[in-house]
Amino acid sequence: MRAAVLNRGEIVVRDDVPEPTPTTGQVLVQVRACGICGSDLHFAQHAPRALELGKAVEGLPQLGAQEDLDLDRDVYMGHEFAAEVLEAGPDTQTLAPGTLVTSVPVLAAPDGIRPIVYSNVVAGGYGERMLLTAPMLLEVPNGLDASHAALTEPMAVGLHAVNRSRIEPRTEGALVLGCGPVGLAVIAALKLRAVEPIVAADFSPARRTLALTMGAHEAVDPQEESGWAAYGRVGKGRSLVVFEAIGVPGVIDDTLNPFFGIAKELNVQFALGYDAMEFAASLRSIAEGEIDVVPMVTAEVGLDDVPWAFGALRDPEEHCKIIVTPSSSSGSRR
Amino acid sequence: MRAAVLNRGEIVVRDDVPEPTPTTGQVLVQVRACGICGSDLHFAQHAPRALELGKAVEGLPQLGAQEDLDLDRDVYMGHEFAAEVLEAGPDTQTLAPGTLVTSVPVLAAPDGIRPIVYSNVVAGGYGERMLLTAPMLLEVPNGLDASHAALTEPMAVGLHAVNRSRIEPRTEGALVLGCGPVGLAVIAALKLRAVEPIVAADFSPARRTLALTMGAHEAVDPQEESGWAAYGRVGKGRSLVVFEAIGVPGVIDDTLNPFFGIAKELNVQFALGYDAMEFAASLRSIAEGEIDVVPMVTAEVGLDDVPWAFGALRDPEEHCKIIVTPSSSSGSRR
Repeated sequence: MRAAVLNRGEIVVRDDVPEPTPTTGQVLVQVRACGICGSDLHFAQHAPRALELGKAVEGLPQLGAQEDLDLDRDVYMGHEFAAEVLEAGPDTQTLAPGTLVTSVPVLAAPDGIRPIVYSNVVAGGYGERMLLTAPMLLEVPNGLDASHAALTEPMAVGLHAVNRSRIEPRTEGALVLGCGPVGLAVIAALKLRAVEPIVAADFSPARRTLALTMGAHEAVDPQEESGWAAYGRVGKGRSLVVFEAIGVPGVIDDTLNPFFGIAKELNVQFALGYDAMEFAASLRSIAEGEIDVVPMVTAEVGLDDVPWAFGALRDPEEHCKIIVTPSSSSGSRR
Repeated sequence: MRAAVLNRGEIVVRDDVPEPTPTTGQVLVQVRACGICGSDLHFAQHAPRALELGKAVEGLPQLGAQEDLDLDRDVYMGHEFAAEVLEAGPDTQTLAPGTLVTSVPVLAAPDGIRPIVYSNVVAGGYGERMLLTAPMLLEVPNGLDASHAALTEPMAVGLHAVNRSRIEPRTEGALVLGCGPVGLAVIAALKLRAVEPIVAADFSPARRTLALTMGAHEAVDPQEESGWAAYGRVGKGRSLVVFEAIGVPGVIDDTLNPFFGIAKELNVQFALGYDAMEFAASLRSIAEGEIDVVPMVTAEVGLDDVPWAFGALRDPEEHCKIIVTPSSSSGSRR
């Protein structure tokens, strides 16, 4: 089958990727849409360092379960997918063929649980077909479009961060630093929880506009006014929860001076991923129209344009979330 | 009156400190006991740097309220005190003279609220007499000795850290790094909450013995076994809350790599001080015998021996908490 894969730092399109075959408990699906995640861009550029750091974390459940990844071989990626059921493995019950589904990107394989994130073996959403875990399938409700259902995963990341923050909407406001897909997902989750005000900060005018569309009450250019100053202006004296969604060195400072943390009794909560309940809640919010993800999708492309898309996503003015439609011959570079 | 003061980095004993005079709302007290706090040792050594950092924190309530401290003049210290009521200021009701009291170290003065911590003006517990705030006085119950009531303040610091940690005794255990007075106060508060196991780590054998006395289930020498390894051995798979009570550079690492925080979804809670409820709860726990502070007190000294005590406290094998009894001619260098 066809798939876009990572090969020594480059995204290349292959015509001869082995067809996945479902075993017991697995379901073969036809990928209808798969979002390109910022973490895939990072991994394409920094895979050796990412693997090195992953190995340095003892007992890390999320990354430790993956096989020893060989970066000299093709790496399958794509974990923000919506797909149609094709057929179940032996002795496996599942939804009817043609049902549009999504799932937490985890595959139950005979030799253990494997994340569908980066793999030499487990096909991801940047290919025509992939395997999913039968009991984990979520049917996409309300006739929601596959390319919007594919945003279940990134929006769940924002919901999880907001849950982890324990923000108290009656007494606390929020400042979201960085309005990429993660920052926007955080804003959407904060809006759904009626947090007020939500102040967003990003250097990109297009991203600031998106932040306002997704629910921010104020969006500032840090070159003109810091997020903290803006919050001071509109925060009505409410306590502040800051969401760091930039992720470049120097934002969470490289050197930590505990004095300042102690003096303000700061709480720092790191966040990663989501749980199955948050994933399901994210799908429901999108399908019920509580969260409108349409403005975030700036292009749909076929497999041939995935290498182009990885480059295009470096410009925040032009693109936010690009959806790959591996089963159509082409997409629209909107 | 007599007082031990900080003068350009040295502790010196003065005979000619001005007698404090209570104004409305204030009470003059005779200091019976005052513990020497590790932060006083730090301040004696690093006062210029501490003031510089304090000024760098915008709107810092705890330190910002103090006057512009002049390090070329005498600095009064001593914030872990128990004292006897002498007389109230004009139009002020208070407890009967002779009543043993303690209080959060804060003085309501006509020009504002002042911490009783470091000051050129506000006398502290390392002197014969000081002023307290009438409505904030707590009577020491149950005939508790002044030198033990003086531990209300440091034990409240431990209670506050445990409260801030939101530790869940049914599912979480604790690792306490550093068994100085703060670490020991944390251990006592954890024991009172029935947290299990409590693992303590300190290089000093004497401090490890104290940790076990105060409630730790296991006390390890990090040169032989890391606290984490020990917790792995006795933690029964329970989630771990780590209390950092060492406070030297390099423990909370100078350089922060967010990857590790993200991978483990760490939560970092900085803690400072306590509130009035925690202070009162701390006094009650000591007076009711729920927390036995006796083992922590390793010496009682008169004012003349305060300079010696500041040096002696550098050796964790010999001393833990030294109590100054400013109103007695001498103490016992136990």
